[in-house]
Amino acid sequence: MKLEHIGIAIRNLEAADKLFSTIMNTSGYKTEAVEREGVITRFFMAGDSKIELLEATRPDSPIATFIERRGEGIHHLAFEVEDIIGEMVRLKEEGFRLLSEVPKRGADNKWICFLHPKDSHGVLIELCQEIKE
Amino acid sequence: MKLEHIGIAIRNLEAADKLFSTIMNTSGYKTEAVEREGVITRFFMAGDSKIELLEATRPDSPIATFIERRGEGIHHLAFEVEDIIGEMVRLKEEGFRLLSEVPKRGADNKWICFLHPKDSHGVLIELCQEIKE
Repeated sequence: MKLEHIGIAIRNLEAADKLFSTIMNTSGYKTEAVEREGVITRFFMAGDSKIELLEATRPDSPIATFIERRGEGIHHLAFEVEDIIGEMVRLKEEGFRLLSEVPKRGADNKWICFLHPKDSHGVLIELCQEIKE
Repeated sequence: MKLEHIGIAIRNLEAADKLFSTIMNTSGYKTEAVEREGVITRFFMAGDSKIELLEATRPDSPIATFIERRGEGIHHLAFEVEDIIGEMVRLKEEGFRLLSEVPKRGADNKWICFLHPKDSHGVLIELCQEIKE
């Protein structure tokens, strides 16, 4: 599995954009809102992987809840898979809990599914697969 | 900058190894102790990046302190740079605080330097460069 991106929960996209642009010496290349998840995202290339900054757009967004509980910081790791349904079935059989029964439409043209972080040492793991249509 | 690896603080390397091997459907390819930092590490390939599991080997290890405060979970992001001294100078001039004045010898044959996480939205960022000697 390839490490597709790292999601970072931040309070303010413009402030975080400035900061990560300075550290990484590059600019964010895409900004995208995901209404259903209540987030606005900005992506940076980092070699073969990406950094995804995530700002909540409403108080009940999972990102707002995360920041309230733990503060800003790394929110999830996303692994790219070729067959997300197959991987969901495989991991479910291995005893992992999935946060959705079917893949959801995420940012960056991806089918996504999260594993329960309590099953993976506190790390929220996303499986993702490019949407082809 | 390339995302070289993600460091994950865990309590027990063998338990975490089993779990990440299952999720990623691959085996760790290297185990390495870094005495000075009080950690034992195990690496997994994830495309062009790596996952580094970190278990503390003594109570005053930064990993032990991290887990005590925040629980297990993602500890740091590491970006590979070609000129670590140049990047340290650049980021210092940009106002970032460095956790060491000179690079330290880290796991996986790397020179490493951390940025202060309070300057980067709660994300602990490591710069790393392959040691060539």
